Amino acid sequence: MIPRYTRPEMASIWEPQTRFKIWFEIEAHAADALAELGTIPKDAAKTIWAKAKDATFNVERIDEIERETKHDVIAFLTHLAEIVGPEARFVHQGMTSSDVLDTCLNVQLTRCADILIADIDRLLAALKTRAFEHKMTPTIGRSHGIHAEPVTFGLKLAYAYAEFTRNRERLVAARKEVATCAISGAVGTFAQIDPRVEEHVAKAMGLVPEPISTQVIPRDRHAMFFATLGVIASSMERLAVEIRHMQRTEVLEAEEFFSEGQKGSSAMPHKRNPVLTENITGLARMVRAYVTPALENVVLWHERDISHSSAERMFGPDATVTLDFALNRMAGVIEKLLVYPANMQKNLDRLGGLVHSQRVLIALTQKGASREDSYKLVQRNAMPVWRGEGDFQTLLKNDPEVKKYLTDDEISEKFDLGYHLKHVDTIFKRVFGAS
Amino acid sequence: MIPRYTRPEMASIWEPQTRFKIWFEIEAHAADALAELGTIPKDAAKTIWAKAKDATFNVERIDEIERETKHDVIAFLTHLAEIVGPEARFVHQGMTSSDVLDTCLNVQLTRCADILIADIDRLLAALKTRAFEHKMTPTIGRSHGIHAEPVTFGLKLAYAYAEFTRNRERLVAARKEVATCAISGAVGTFAQIDPRVEEHVAKAMGLVPEPISTQVIPRDRHAMFFATLGVIASSMERLAVEIRHMQRTEVLEAEEFFSEGQKGSSAMPHKRNPVLTENITGLARMVRAYVTPALENVVLWHERDISHSSAERMFGPDATVTLDFALNRMAGVIEKLLVYPANMQKNLDRLGGLVHSQRVLIALTQKGASREDSYKLVQRNAMPVWRGEGDFQTLLKNDPEVKKYLTDDEISEKFDLGYHLKHVDTIFKRVFGAS
Amino acid sequence: MIPRYTRPEMASIWEPQTRFKIWFEIEAHAADALAELGTIPKDAAKTIWAKAKDATFNVERIDEIERETKHDVIAFLTHLAEIVGPEARFVHQGMTSSDVLDTCLNVQLTRCADILIADIDRLLAALKTRAFEHKMTPTIGRSHGIHAEPVTFGLKLAYAYAEFTRNRERLVAARKEVATCAISGAVGTFAQIDPRVEEHVAKAMGLVPEPISTQVIPRDRHAMFFATLGVIASSMERLAVEIRHMQRTEVLEAEEFFSEGQKGSSAMPHKRNPVLTENITGLARMVRAYVTPALENVVLWHERDISHSSAERMFGPDATVTLDFALNRMAGVIEKLLVYPANMQKNLDRLGGLVHSQRVLIALTQKGASREDSYKLVQRNAMPVWRGEGDFQTLLKNDPEVKKYLTDDEISEKFDLGYHLKHVDTIFKRVFGAS
Amino acid sequence: MIPRYTRPEMASIWEPQTRFKIWFEIEAHAADALAELGTIPKDAAKTIWAKAKDATFNVERIDEIERETKHDVIAFLTHLAEIVGPEARFVHQGMTSSDVLDTCLNVQLTRCADILIADIDRLLAALKTRAFEHKMTPTIGRSHGIHAEPVTFGLKLAYAYAEFTRNRERLVAARKEVATCAISGAVGTFAQIDPRVEEHVAKAMGLVPEPISTQVIPRDRHAMFFATLGVIASSMERLAVEIRHMQRTEVLEAEEFFSEGQKGSSAMPHKRNPVLTENITGLARMVRAYVTPALENVVLWHERDISHSSAERMFGPDATVTLDFALNRMAGVIEKLLVYPANMQKNLDRLGGLVHSQRVLIALTQKGASREDSYKLVQRNAMPVWRGEGDFQTLLKNDPEVKKYLTDDEISEKFDLGYHLKHVDTIFKRVFGAS
Repeated sequence: MIPRYTRPEMASIWEPQTRFKIWFEIEAHAADALAELGTIPKDAAKTIWAKAKDATFNVERIDEIERETKHDVIAFLTHLAEIVGPEARFVHQGMTSSDVLDTCLNVQLTRCADILIADIDRLLAALKTRAFEHKMTPTIGRSHGIHAEPVTFGLKLAYAYAEFTRNRERLVAARKEVATCAISGAVGTFAQIDPRVEEHVAKAMGLVPEPISTQVIPRDRHAMFFATLGVIASSMERLAVEIRHMQRTEVLEAEEFFSEGQKGSSAMPHKRNPVLTENITGLARMVRAYVTPALENVVLWHERDISHSSAERMFGPDATVTLDFALNRMAGVIEKLLVYPANMQKNLDRLGGLVHSQRVLIALTQKGASREDSYKLVQRNAMPVWRGEGDFQTLLKNDPEVKKYLTDDEISEKFDLGYHLKHVDTIFKRVFGAS
Repeated sequence: MIPRYTRPEMASIWEPQTRFKIWFEIEAHAADALAELGTIPKDAAKTIWAKAKDATFNVERIDEIERETKHDVIAFLTHLAEIVGPEARFVHQGMTSSDVLDTCLNVQLTRCADILIADIDRLLAALKTRAFEHKMTPTIGRSHGIHAEPVTFGLKLAYAYAEFTRNRERLVAARKEVATCAISGAVGTFAQIDPRVEEHVAKAMGLVPEPISTQVIPRDRHAMFFATLGVIASSMERLAVEIRHMQRTEVLEAEEFFSEGQKGSSAMPHKRNPVLTENITGLARMVRAYVTPALENVVLWHERDISHSSAERMFGPDATVTLDFALNRMAGVIEKLLVYPANMQKNLDRLGGLVHSQRVLIALTQKGASREDSYKLVQRNAMPVWRGEGDFQTLLKNDPEVKKYLTDDEISEKFDLGYHLKHVDTIFKRVFGAS
Repeated sequence: MIPRYTRPEMASIWEPQTRFKIWFEIEAHAADALAELGTIPKDAAKTIWAKAKDATFNVERIDEIERETKHDVIAFLTHLAEIVGPEARFVHQGMTSSDVLDTCLNVQLTRCADILIADIDRLLAALKTRAFEHKMTPTIGRSHGIHAEPVTFGLKLAYAYAEFTRNRERLVAARKEVATCAISGAVGTFAQIDPRVEEHVAKAMGLVPEPISTQVIPRDRHAMFFATLGVIASSMERLAVEIRHMQRTEVLEAEEFFSEGQKGSSAMPHKRNPVLTENITGLARMVRAYVTPALENVVLWHERDISHSSAERMFGPDATVTLDFALNRMAGVIEKLLVYPANMQKNLDRLGGLVHSQRVLIALTQKGASREDSYKLVQRNAMPVWRGEGDFQTLLKNDPEVKKYLTDDEISEKFDLGYHLKHVDTIFKRVFGAS
Repeated sequence: MIPRYTRPEMASIWEPQTRFKIWFEIEAHAADALAELGTIPKDAAKTIWAKAKDATFNVERIDEIERETKHDVIAFLTHLAEIVGPEARFVHQGMTSSDVLDTCLNVQLTRCADILIADIDRLLAALKTRAFEHKMTPTIGRSHGIHAEPVTFGLKLAYAYAEFTRNRERLVAARKEVATCAISGAVGTFAQIDPRVEEHVAKAMGLVPEPISTQVIPRDRHAMFFATLGVIASSMERLAVEIRHMQRTEVLEAEEFFSEGQKGSSAMPHKRNPVLTENITGLARMVRAYVTPALENVVLWHERDISHSSAERMFGPDATVTLDFALNRMAGVIEKLLVYPANMQKNLDRLGGLVHSQRVLIALTQKGASREDSYKLVQRNAMPVWRGEGDFQTLLKNDPEVKKYLTDDEISEKFDLGYHLKHVDTIFKRVFGAS
């Protein structure tokens, strides 16, 4: 999490002020429940809300107390007492620090998930718009980096759309994984606090009670959450790499948007670098890197050890802030992507029609030529094209042997792009739904 | 995937014979659909099934052909033609190798998922049985490896039960991720094959059609699948580490089952090592290790490159076989775990009642002692106990200052385990449901 | 890199001011070389140094320019021109941004390495002092967490000393990996700049020229650097886990230092948590996590792509700052570690002498008892001990069958700790050298 | 480790027969030392060698015994006794299984390292030969996938050569890391065995004594070893990706060798896929994946736990066998790489000379044009070229404004490739040494 790759909205979730605000809400909702159960006076609960609801917590003061007590929750509670006054003694009754810390972390992560879902929605919208714009823009499909058969640029964006639709669903599931609350005490037995407090706080904070906790909320939930971010980052990298490939000098089928004022563009007009998608590629590596410590964090000793905490303090913000930044950058890239259909066509035509050789081969066999002969006929017309000596279609039409099996029209038909694009509609319906 | 850590059922999914069987079924179902569409003769489809349905494919023969053609699917089709005869020319019409390969991989992975779900079910059953057996067996709860407050051994198993319930759900979701079929041709446009063939094959193989594929089925699906295995492996390691801790000489609250015949047991009765759970710990590291290449595999170039394939050929079997083996070993460990309630009690009593100091402290303040005085009173009785000079409860009862606030009965009550276990029922209901 | 886990000395290496200072030095040294070669006026080089040598660069101003130009090096050079005046036009002649950026990164990493080496030296010193202090403090050696045979606490620290001696050597090698300089132009051909400039700058900055660069310094060097940090982090975690184990309530052979003032210590004297080593455990996970993106960064496209940059901007500071913080914390833990030899002895004696059973077994066979009989004799005296009914040595001395083979003195000798510790001196000499 | 990606030489290191042979040698050398020290009869040591030196161990028999004893070393020793006879009782005296296992593992790893060094040497030789062959073959250098300035194809291979020279050094260092021997007993104290036995065995097996061991050889050594393999794999992937890029249809500057017989080549002459380098890319992901479990293995509990073992049994063979296979495949790719200098030239010329625009810009300023005017002049001649309307050099020569500053000869000189290649010799000397 460095300023360069940080958006304020996501960063604010991880700011001390936000954290303290959430801590307060957890404590105050717990006080409500305790008051309802008769454990503390109802007036105390009211006072706690009244005095601190709109307070701005003094982060420096809390830090100061923490330096002394070496305990962050106690430091906060001490400061809260300075705000609330004597009724503060009814705060945190029967609770453990982790009740506050872990529930807060999950509140933060669900908020992060909400932003990330919005990010994906922005990206999906951009992909959909551009996909329909280029639904029928022909371009060459490539396997192994080698020309294969025609597709459309819209299909390329539809792949990504389908992939991010899946990522959205995964993120919704991941959000649910961490949307739990634990107010269960030192070892999760509710020895000092009634389970109904947990139920009340959970509901108030938009969470569900953790069925069984052990001071901490089990970290398999968080592992699943961050593993999901790693998958999303990898999808994002796939799309970034596609654009980097398309922007290569020799390919130049699309380019990241390049503002006119951007220095040096017109003296070296070729030197427009796909720096945004390269940047995203690197950021994807980072989001992926956080998966392993999140997995290792699952293995806590007995009812809890605190080894997960230092790692989470780092990768929690780092993973969410970085993915948020990168997804937004990705959406911007797609929204403003410069697309060059003429270059796509040029590349499609580059091999003089050889991408259609397989269709010709099949046609010959279907017209009765033996497999061996068909192969030989295709081959002897393909090789000159490969050497740059002619156009495949023309050569075929001039080959007397080929003529025996196929008319000129039949040959022409084999070079028809429409043949390849006839199911684009079907695929679009599958991906985007009937519209 | 080494024999030592392999169970035959899971291994058989990855055997060549199984793979060829699945390939055949995909091809034969596709032939059915092609026949239905009138693309190939109906009799041809029937003959294909009739001739090869019960065939054992000659793996060596296929290998031999592959060495020549350097292409595994062509080698298989050549061999299939040797079995089917002339109608073999109607096999694989309009299809691409990846149509067969990727659909087959997904069939294999869903079968793996089914076995892994059964593994988890076995583990869940063991955890539940043992949890109810020890629902009320008191044991010390530990945070940071330090005694905290009492829990029960049943609760410890209930944590694991809840965690593996989540893992089961994740695995069901992961299975769904990979339960797709693609029969869409060289770049996924269905240029040479009707989408209805894909629909038919999908249904016949227990899959759903991949909405949009690009010769290959997108690898974000597989990334999610293997990431899920990594989470499950980490949960498994957590449980393994718990048992390793409990078996430590100084703790000895439980032990892996040790058959009477096992060498050396009685001359060195202490030297029973938790080798199964240590073994599982190491295997968990491996399953986790496969997550990263699965994530990297997502980033294929354009419509596909084949870099994912070599990695998958390794980690596909390795991850599933290893997790299957380890889950079963884990289930066996739990089923036969030797549990020592007396040692649990001994450890609980080890600190002469100091684990109850917090309750005493709270009681004193509730009875009117100032927080400072309460602390002092607890402290001056705790320190001798810590030095091994007496029992906390007795000392408190003999302290005249304490007596001012608390009667003997009140003090005794603070040492009551029941206080800590009063919500075990509630928690069990949350975890196992009302029974 | 979060303030909580950051030491100022290491953080300062990554501050903008430091970076700009290094950039300036690279540019100024390059100007010297260019002047020497006659490419620019000698006076210009002098003026550059004179005007900017002691300058404080205005980070905000540079950021402002960067927001406009979207190029960090150009922003810096613009600001530098504001400081240097007209001679600034001789700065950066024939150079590429990466010449400055990559050489600077390597200067930063070598400085990080120097601090990390000092960190390890501090840790080594602490380990050595405490190792000699406890060279002959007996404690039980454990395999699988189970009592095995006696060692000394000094040996435990000597293991760590030997391991960190290796880590020191690895770090020195890793430092050498990244101590290179490249001033080679847009694609590394020195088209616009004489290789002698690179040689001069390298020497002046304490580096060696990169034999062949491609605009960027190859990232296998950095991969090796960060992989080495990952190994060191893992060693650190091993030591941290050892202490966490020793501090467990049931073991309590050592404790992290606990200041008298630290809250709650004496009312719950048992509740001293090994939070520092748990914290280090988590931080080790993070340092390890950065290894994978560093490895992925090696795979740049052609002469360079910039995907490595965003990842490095994050993990460069994160890995070095975190490891520095953790190593220092670790050194502090060792320096002030509370060691409890009496508890070590108590644990050693815990099994009533059973840890010596193997020596008794061997002695019996050496005295002529058959292997089978020896085993039976040991077993029948071991089992009561294991059930808590007696002391192994006493039982053996009272067993008439055993008496046939071994005298009381011979039996006593088998329980002599000295037998196990006779080579401690040899091992210490191997580890610490003859002293 | 699957047959498809396995070379027999490397695989044989990991075969049971090899392992048993090494175990025997360790035991027999230890017997020699014990005999020399007078612990066992000299004749016994001789007999051990005489009887078993040339024995083929019966792997099935050993497996059979292991199934019973659940202990691999005991199973081996039992079988060895069947071969050696009564003197077998002098084998393994005072030793621990790990003495044999860990020393054997290190023997295996050093042998692996030797093969991998030979692999790198083969690759280096291929790179050198091809580099000199194409030392002066011009090709475009690319940053961000975009044309930058000219380099030579020889330089590209020289980058890789320099990188693998570093990898060779790293591997030599990694080999040294694991070239240690431990014969130190149950907890490493030499309680039952003289340190001189370790010294003797170490020397005899080509190792050095581990200064301090703890039943096991510390795993930071192995972590460093496998981390180094991860770095080498990443370098290999970089080279593989370079070739994949060059083989792209639009680039086609080089191709993996394609045997004439390979199916389908001439009917679709464009469809030559870089499958070998794609395959290597995937294998690199696997070798990299093993780094993390090797790092996690460092963190053993106390004197040892056995969690490392299951992981090592998998990644030990997997990492070494896979890297060996991939390096050899890579060497073969380089040795037989089809290089297309004409296409390189075509790509170089692709932008109508625009890659030289920066040199023209500098020349104009050096001849007195203001920076602003120079820029404008370059720009107005660059833009038509970019639109495909003319050649940059011709346009410049026809621009009367440009003529004011530069003669035709001066302009021509700016398009001279020699300018960019003048230091190739220097670089080659740095990389390959003076030849």
